[in-house]
Formats: sequence, C-alpha cells, structure tokens
Amino acid sequence: MLELAFQPDRDARQPVYRQLARFLRELIQARRLLPGERLPASRELAASLSLSRNTVNQAYQILLEDGLLRARVGQGTYVAGRPAAAPASPPAAARAFAWEGLLARRTRALALPRLPAAPPSLRFDLRAGRADLASLPLLELKRAFGQAAARAASLADEADPRGWLPLRRALSRSLVARGIACTPDEVAITNGAQQALDLVARTLVDPGDAVALEQPGYFGAALAFSSCEAHLVGIGVDDHGLRTDELARVLRARRVKLLYATPASQQPTGVALSEARRHALLALSDEYQLPIVEDDYDSELRYGGPPVPALKHLDPGGRVIYLGTFSKALFAGLRIGYVVAPAALIGRFALARVASDFNTDVVTQAALCDLLESGALERHVRRVRQLYAARRQTLLEQLEARMPEGARWRPPAGGNALWLRLPDAADMQAFHAGCLAAGIALGPGELMALPDGPARAEAQRHVQVSFARIPEERIEDAVGELARVTRQACAGRRVA
Amino acid sequence: MLELAFQPDRDARQPVYRQLARFLRELIQARRLLPGERLPASRELAASLSLSRNTVNQAYQILLEDGLLRARVGQGTYVAGRPAAAPASPPAAARAFAWEGLLARRTRALALPRLPAAPPSLRFDLRAGRADLASLPLLELKRAFGQAAARAASLADEADPRGWLPLRRALSRSLVARGIACTPDEVAITNGAQQALDLVARTLVDPGDAVALEQPGYFGAALAFSSCEAHLVGIGVDDHGLRTDELARVLRARRVKLLYATPASQQPTGVALSEARRHALLALSDEYQLPIVEDDYDSELRYGGPPVPALKHLDPGGRVIYLGTFSKALFAGLRIGYVVAPAALIGRFALARVASDFNTDVVTQAALCDLLESGALERHVRRVRQLYAARRQTLLEQLEARMPEGARWRPPAGGNALWLRLPDAADMQAFHAGCLAAGIALGPGELMALPDGPARAEAQRHVQVSFARIPEERIEDAVGELARVTRQACAGRRVA
Repeated sequence: MLELAFQPDRDARQPVYRQLARFLRELIQARRLLPGERLPASRELAASLSLSRNTVNQAYQILLEDGLLRARVGQGTYVAGRPAAAPASPPAAARAFAWEGLLARRTRALALPRLPAAPPSLRFDLRAGRADLASLPLLELKRAFGQAAARAASLADEADPRGWLPLRRALSRSLVARGIACTPDEVAITNGAQQALDLVARTLVDPGDAVALEQPGYFGAALAFSSCEAHLVGIGVDDHGLRTDELARVLRARRVKLLYATPASQQPTGVALSEARRHALLALSDEYQLPIVEDDYDSELRYGGPPVPALKHLDPGGRVIYLGTFSKALFAGLRIGYVVAPAALIGRFALARVASDFNTDVVTQAALCDLLESGALERHVRRVRQLYAARRQTLLEQLEARMPEGARWRPPAGGNALWLRLPDAADMQAFHAGCLAAGIALGPGELMALPDGPARAEAQRHVQVSFARIPEERIEDAVGELARVTRQACAGRRVA
Repeated sequence: MLELAFQPDRDARQPVYRQLARFLRELIQARRLLPGERLPASRELAASLSLSRNTVNQAYQILLEDGLLRARVGQGTYVAGRPAAAPASPPAAARAFAWEGLLARRTRALALPRLPAAPPSLRFDLRAGRADLASLPLLELKRAFGQAAARAASLADEADPRGWLPLRRALSRSLVARGIACTPDEVAITNGAQQALDLVARTLVDPGDAVALEQPGYFGAALAFSSCEAHLVGIGVDDHGLRTDELARVLRARRVKLLYATPASQQPTGVALSEARRHALLALSDEYQLPIVEDDYDSELRYGGPPVPALKHLDPGGRVIYLGTFSKALFAGLRIGYVVAPAALIGRFALARVASDFNTDVVTQAALCDLLESGALERHVRRVRQLYAARRQTLLEQLEARMPEGARWRPPAGGNALWLRLPDAADMQAFHAGCLAAGIALGPGELMALPDGPARAEAQRHVQVSFARIPEERIEDAVGELARVTRQACAGRRVA
C-alpha cells in the first residue's frame, strides 16, 4: 500500500481534511501520485495516519470535485486520468527570459533611494510618516470594518471610479473645515494621496514635460511624476515656504506643466507658506496658467494659531488640485486618500482610474465613511492632535536643552515630524552609524531631495525626527542619545 | 441677538453638538458670522434652539479648539480675529482653467465605451462581471474584516509594495491547485487584476509598442495597454481559443512586445484554449521571446472535466506573467488581485507600484488572508461553483428550447457568462430597446472589441449573458423574454 508521509498540523487554522487534500493535491501535481494510481481506502488511510475516516473522506471529496481523483464504483478511488499537473512536455528550448531588455523607458528611469538599515534593536522610533499606534481607535475600526463587510451584498457592485458616493458626500462636507467648498462631483476617492498624484501625473504629464516641486520635498511626488517621464524642476524653500521668486524665474525661462507644493506644512521642513507667498503663488499660477497640486497631507495636525485655510480656498479659477489623505490621521496601511478638482478634470482622473485599477476597495470606503460620519475619526484626530502637540513641545524643549551647537531645526507648523540639520562639524556617516548602534531610527534626509539636484547635499545633512511614536516621558532620553551620537559624529570628524 | 436657523437632525448618526459645530463653522467660513462678532451665550442659544446647554458648550468647545472662535474671560465667545475662511482678495483676473488643453497625450487617447442604459425596472439581471449576492458569506466577511481591523496596530506600518507577506505565502500555496509552483517572492498583491495589468503595462510597454490581444477580448486589458499608448493588435478567436496561426503571422511581420490572453475560458467567448494551441503558443513565445500575460480571471469557476492547468504551469522559462483575482470569487467591489512572475520582474512591478499608490490596503489584505487560510473562501467557492453550474446548465437548456433560429452560443468552459450571438435577421438597436423595455440587463458585446478593430461589428451582434444572479427557477422566464425580444427585433427588421 501507498505510504503517505502526512503530518497534520493540529494548531493550524486550516482543518485537517483540507490539509490532507492539499497534501494529496501536491503529490498529484508533482506526479508522485500518477494517473490511474489507486488511493488507499479511506478506512485504511485513516488508520495509518491516525485520522478519522470522515477526515479522509472529506479530503477525497474535495479532490473528486476538483477532478483530480475519480471514484470507480466498488473499486475505490484513483488518480484521475489526465491530472491537472500532467506536465505535457514543455518546449525543449525554453530560454529564460531576459526581462531587463524588455523594460519600458519609464521603468528604467525609476529608482528608489536606498534607505538606511533599521537598528537591530529599536529603542527610539523617530521615523517619519508613521502614526502613534497606542492611540489607534481599534474598537471603532473593528466595528466600522466589520459592519461595512457585513453590508457587502449591497456594496458589491459599487464601481464608480470616483469612489462611493456617500463617502464623497461626507468628505465634501468635511472639507468645509479647510475652507474648501466642493460638491461630491468635484471629489474622487483614491488609494491614498499617492494614487491621487499618480492620476494627476497620468492625466496631465507627457514625457519631457517640466514639473516644478519644492526642494527639499516629498519623495512620493517626485516618484509619481518621474514615472511619467517628467522633467523635474526643483524650487527652493526658506523660512516662508516655497520660494516664489525662484518659481517666477523658472516660469519666465521655460514652460512648466504644473507645480506640486505642500503649503500648510512644507514636507519635510514643516514651514507654513506665508500669506504673501500664497498670493504671489496664485498670481503666478494665473499669469502662466500654471496648475497647482496642493498636497494637504497633514491637514488635521496643525500647531499654534488659527488654522490657515487651504490654498484651494483662495482659488476661484479652479487651478488648484487639492489632495488629502486619511492615512496620516489613522495609519499608513489604510489606503484612502482623495483629490478635489473641477468636475471635468475629476472625470479625466476617473478614466485614468479605470485603466489603473477601476476603483477603491468598497469595504474600506464604507468603513471610512462610517468613521467620518459617526464622529469617531474626528474624536481620534482630536486625541492625537493633543498627544502630538505635547510631544512636539517637549521635543522642541529637549532639543533646545541638549543638542550641541550648530544643530538647527524649526518648530514645524503641522504634521508629526521636524527637519533637523546636523552641525557642519558632524560626519554624517558616523552619525547614522551611531544612531544605528544606539537603537535610534530616523527619517533619512536624502530621501527628500532629487538624486542629482542642488538640494541633495544639504538634505543629506538633515534627518526627519518624528514625535508621533515616542512617549513624552521618553523624549528626554531619546534627545539625550541623539545629542550624544551627534557630539560623537562631530568629535570623530575633528579627530580624523 | 443673532438668529440661527439651526435644525438638529435627531436621526443622524452625528451627535447634535457636532451638527451644531458644523453649522457654525459653515457660517464662519461663509462669512455670515464675521470676525469679532459675538456669539450668544450658551444658555441663550440653548434656549432659542431647544437644545441642552451642554450641547451648545460642546459645539463652542470644538470651534474654540479649531481656532475659529475665541473666548474673552467674562465677555463671552467671539468669532476669531482672522477666521479660517477670511477670503483674502483672490487674484482679480483669475481665469477659469482650460484643462482640456493641458491633457497628456495618453489621456486624450483614452475613452470608455458608452454602456447601454440600465432598464428602469430591472426584472432579469444578466449583466456580466457580477457575482451572486445571495450566497455571499456575510458573516465570514464581517468576522474577517472586523478582526483584521482590530489588528490595525500591528499592521499599521505594513508597506511592502508587493503585498503583505502572509497573504503572499497563503496565495503561493493555494496556486498549487492551478499547477503553479511559486515562492512568495514571485507574487505581488494588487488592487484587483486590473492593477496587475496596469503594472505590466507601465513596466514593459513604451508608447508605440505593439501589444497583441484576443479579439473579441477583455476591455480592461485594452484600456490598461492603451493608457500606455500601446499599439493594440487584435488576434482572432475560434472554437479552440486564440488563433495561434494568426498570431504567428503577426509575429513574422512585426515586433510585438507582449501578448495578453485568457486561456482557461476566453473572455468573452468562454472557449478554453486547446492543448495543441497551448503548445503552439508557448513555442511562438519561445521563438520570438514573446512574454505572455495569462489572465486566469475565473480560475475557480470551471465546468466539466478535470481542471486544465494554467499556461504558467507549462512555463519553465518564466515567460508567462500570471494574473488572478478574488473579485470574481467574492464580489467586484473587493479590490484584491495578484500577479505571479519571476522575482526580478516582481521587483520592477513593486517600483511601479510605489509610484502608483504604494501598496494595497492592509486591512483588506489581512481579511482576505484569513478567508483563504480558514478555508472560508474555498467553502464559498465550492458553493457558488455548484450554484453556477446548475444555472449554467438550465440556461443552456432553455436557450436551446426557446431561442429563435440563427441565435448561437457555446457552453462556456468557465466563468459565469456566455457569449450569445443574435440572429443576422435581428435589428440590434431594436433588440437592445426591447431588452430595456422588458427589464432585461445584459453585457453589451461591443464593450469586448477594440473600437476600430475588425472584430467590432461582429461583437456588436453579441451580448454577454451572465447566469450569476438569476435564480434557477427564473431562468425559463428570462430566456422566454429574451427570445421574445429577439423575435421582435427580427420581425421589426423584416418589416422595415
């Protein structure tokens, strides 16, 4: 009789009969059980494997239904005549494909910056782009997702590439808080703000088109536009935000297809675009018919003073394409963002969306709509805003008290990270090695500048320090360690 | 005193204090409450609106925290000095943007076919691309999504653009059933199979590259490739599937970047690619180093005989890019698909993925992984397979019994729709109008052929008839009506 080396995993979630069915299937696929071969009677196999006969019968039944086994009345169970895996002789000369030679131009141009290794033991998690985990509203999330999934039958056919109408409605109402008046037809839901950038790029950018963006600036925007083979033009940033004088010079010299900017809290410097610059920017946009992509990625997290309305608020001509996301307020793995633009342009985004991936998962959309309408999201945002404000304050105080001379930073206007410049004296390689050894994880500055751009060298002297995940009582220790590593990196250089 | 026309909606999910806060915020944003204006004391406002004083205080508190109101000790509550919505004078000459003139070439080339209107009262839902709703495993879905969301804290940072590793693992194990042996590094999770097509197109197709695809064929593939400005080359389909002789002629004449095909059950004809053609196809692929994109969109739904393994099973050289989806087994609004390819190519897809939208919603991934590993998905698939098989059989019998002469169809090898050709005598416009009047919704055939291609005219004489949603006991009525409408469309033409 056939010997089967099957070991059930009683701790697995998969029932044993399915484990057995999978095991047999693999044997058949691998041709270790051959067509026509007779399987043991279920009673025998059950005995030899110490399983119940019912378990074996269920496994056989699965494979019978799959057509991998067949039963002959009174004769037992056999491997089917032409099993699924019968490897008809593959073309003999099958050469391995040389995919590299087949890559599209736009793919060859794409590259991700190499990120520093994470510390082997993470003591201080100061990485940017993350949210506090302890305050996540898990019960609310569980309820909202569970209830949304339970409604699957009524949501199943949802196919509007602009997103689920109730969510677009709720969203357009909530945007009043940012000074934005829009109808649901002027909103499209996307898989995070990154997809909104991708839709903008696909819809408006031809290969070779110039796209202007802040430098240092958000790497995801650079990536979206370069994947459409845009020519990226960096515009500097100072204490008042994007340098509109520099933008003006560029616009006088060449045609620019669009500008990408983060006016509320410049990513990564944390500077809010001054009112004078806002008006200068809109005047330039008007003069050169320059569309502005406003990424309001951290709109919920603002510190100090009344909220500054979105640039889109000042935009009667409909030249501002406004992006937002819920990934920041909740967590990065939740892929829901949105774009606000004139309805005609939203229609074009919808076309690009159908070609891309049809639409956003409807269960996630319905869950988010629930969180938005029930007020659970707003309650959560209030909570983390307070939490982050306190951590931000402590971080600023500790940096002031402990960092060695020459280190510089600004209080960020929004978001949950600050842009820290290390002293000129610091050897950056030694600094990063020191952080690694001390268990400090930070956001690498070089991620935030174009690889060959003039802002690169300066960005490499920076790190993003997030206060999202560090409990207030540990900030003193964290900054103490950061200061120690910085001093070492400075000393090492002086010695070398 | 200020009169406020606030009407609380007691049935809304949003608590009344938040409704009031929103109402006040909108007044401030719209400058109907001006900076410096004094709000009624909470006691007064509560009385005038028949609300509790606590409700008014909570609303005020929200707006104070938002910086839209400020409180002067002993003097009351005022609209803040420079409220968020203060419209600094917008640039006077703001012209409306002429977006049309700014569209990228690839956008201008994109168009969606116009779909026929849905019947005002839907009696028979025979539309393609939909799943049976009554059999959806709602309790399992609710549990899986709820539990996945409750784990958000441990999933929050998930950022692998190839997808969540446990899901890739479970998926690579489950693909053994299709005769595909792959490691998790050879799998990427996507937002439905459409995004897998988009990643293939972005990664491999330059503007002007020729892409071959079946005609009639799946419109989503045509859309993904045309959005990369591919030159689409249609290859005919007959009773044995894709015409490899026609493909051979094309390959001799010109360079083709890749071939898109649906071998298991050709979309929309339902023909399975014959074994001889499979080998011919792989031989051509080898001779011309032609990558094949195999869309196994309905792999779970096969009728009759042992399952035919995927083309990818016969692919030692790694020339086949295999696509699958869970949207068909569950429902279209669930956006989870996947692509299997050599690891190096998956790495390139991951790059394109980061530029597109980073990754797939992690709650959805975790929920699906749960459904896959617990066996709930397999149980569901078994159930719908039986259901569809019975409906398919009845539909075939009823068509045979009732449709007028000249109508033609084939028993589909898989999926849940058949490709019905109307008689030459039928006036198609009259046919569609008749369906509309009779409350019959069908899949329009013209969606499945390239707008200017030679297959278009023939496709327009077809409809996709799905048996996914029509209960077995209603199939006789549905086909009876379809036959009646067809006869009328034939009669009308003879008369005209």
